[in-house]
Amino acid sequence: MNADAAPLRYAILGSGAVGGLYGAMLARSGCEVHFLLHSDYDHVVANGMKIDSVQGDFILESPHVHASVDSMPVCDVVIIALKSTRNALLDDWLPKLVADDGVVLTLQNGLDVEADVRRTVPAGRVLGGCCFLCSNKVGPGHIHHLDYGRIAFGAYQETDVDAIVAETMGKRIEADMQNAGIDANWSDDLAKTRWRKLMWNIPFNGLSVVLDASTDQIIGSEPGRALANRLITEVHAGAAACGVEIDSKAIRATMEHTETMVPYDSSMRLDFLAKRPMEVEAIFGNPLRAIGDRASEIAPSVCMLYEQLAFYNETICQSA
Amino acid sequence: MNADAAPLRYAILGSGAVGGLYGAMLARSGCEVHFLLHSDYDHVVANGMKIDSVQGDFILESPHVHASVDSMPVCDVVIIALKSTRNALLDDWLPKLVADDGVVLTLQNGLDVEADVRRTVPAGRVLGGCCFLCSNKVGPGHIHHLDYGRIAFGAYQETDVDAIVAETMGKRIEADMQNAGIDANWSDDLAKTRWRKLMWNIPFNGLSVVLDASTDQIIGSEPGRALANRLITEVHAGAAACGVEIDSKAIRATMEHTETMVPYDSSMRLDFLAKRPMEVEAIFGNPLRAIGDRASEIAPSVCMLYEQLAFYNETICQSA
Repeated sequence: MNADAAPLRYAILGSGAVGGLYGAMLARSGCEVHFLLHSDYDHVVANGMKIDSVQGDFILESPHVHASVDSMPVCDVVIIALKSTRNALLDDWLPKLVADDGVVLTLQNGLDVEADVRRTVPAGRVLGGCCFLCSNKVGPGHIHHLDYGRIAFGAYQETDVDAIVAETMGKRIEADMQNAGIDANWSDDLAKTRWRKLMWNIPFNGLSVVLDASTDQIIGSEPGRALANRLITEVHAGAAACGVEIDSKAIRATMEHTETMVPYDSSMRLDFLAKRPMEVEAIFGNPLRAIGDRASEIAPSVCMLYEQLAFYNETICQSA
Repeated sequence: MNADAAPLRYAILGSGAVGGLYGAMLARSGCEVHFLLHSDYDHVVANGMKIDSVQGDFILESPHVHASVDSMPVCDVVIIALKSTRNALLDDWLPKLVADDGVVLTLQNGLDVEADVRRTVPAGRVLGGCCFLCSNKVGPGHIHHLDYGRIAFGAYQETDVDAIVAETMGKRIEADMQNAGIDANWSDDLAKTRWRKLMWNIPFNGLSVVLDASTDQIIGSEPGRALANRLITEVHAGAAACGVEIDSKAIRATMEHTETMVPYDSSMRLDFLAKRPMEVEAIFGNPLRAIGDRASEIAPSVCMLYEQLAFYNETICQSA
């Protein structure tokens, strides 16, 4: 870590519940942050970004906003917080946007979403992270951060050298984020971090759609608890099958953590209710493919939930 | 079979899509049929029963209708076509209604629904049957019979003597029904008949609720087909675990049969949409309990669907 290095310039692709919140916090702390906006562009130019947060409300008066990647400067850190269903756009965007020694940090849900970045960005310059927070976009440029806020991120490493390169930048991003009031934590084991988060996302994103229920409704019902517990246990076993050992106490901890969470509509449920494509492949398909041939034996309930969500994606969530 | 015996007098408990249709067909053919009605009573007294059927429309002008079991005569054959969620009522009703040498034929969906009859009716006098038809009640005393119509029924036998006693009456009922234009078939193996029907009911009743879809939407989608096929295969294996061997060709036949069926909302989906309690225990809980300890291994997808439906029954379908 070089304290004398020039400040990092950030780009935020996907300025919603996650990218909007963290980007606004970084900008408030003094970082140069460039936001890519689509439908919200005019509103944010006129009104700024409004963050209602358990950590304190604020308005970012004049953020650097862009209606197209073409007007954005080259950045040292490109944070991806788009829905992974739109990752095909990255092939065009990232080569224009990432500085020669810059990195891409994808905060998308699921597993192996970094592979979509690696198509255009070299190994050692790809980071992935998981966000443990309850946050929703409630209007144009308006984000409601309800609970939690931690980010754990690490290198999407293919070799040890990749990891060392990635860590240098990772530690600088961690420092910027912590300075901005974000509970950011460098992780030496991204795969474990991602599987640990899947232990929540798979049961609660999935069940919130097929049971048409918020997390408190699921956890407050006997069959809902049984389903969640079974799915969490299967994800834990799936991780082990991929060589990722997670303490089995995490199964119970995930249930308990959800019991104390504010009533929450998962991002997948919000997508479903809005008839937007759900991140079914990133959150369900990729982990099941990572488990491989034994997936239907190790994680039969996850397989079934995957097919149910795929059905909904096909029949209801068909718009682009 | 005694052709000279006095004609059988029938009672129909549950005059909806199934009981109303078959009862009206029996009455039209000349049988004495007494219908128990609740909310439809006044309408049927004034207007009769209206049957719109693929086998021909008709109106039953002046059926014997009753607003209470107390006004019904003792009957030789009591046909139960209520929802099994209301079977607690049978303990009071059946002792008043069944002739000394009468029988009870339950046409309810699921497995072991006859056990609710056996609480008050002796062995050898209990018959069970499965209806393979698409029929909906569309208004007071108004039934729309869309497709199919076969009944297969047999003895709920505990001993060989029970079976002989039951068969004597069963064959007379079969003859009355066939004379009424009903495709009724005596079955020597009720358990097999019930499991064979569960191969349809479990996937298509269950998925129609959790996927919010009609049968043609399920069967018309790749993930829907995969789910249905997996569930059918698991029910087939569950039957085998209970000692009921069904030809494995029935798996494919069930899929093909559903492909050619008219678009149909299952009874469970109609209950769900109307926020009525669904027959989750009869159709899912009883078969899984029959399979026993190995159910989650033999039929994991059925277990999951059971819990999902139990969640909906608890959170949405709470009215009586």
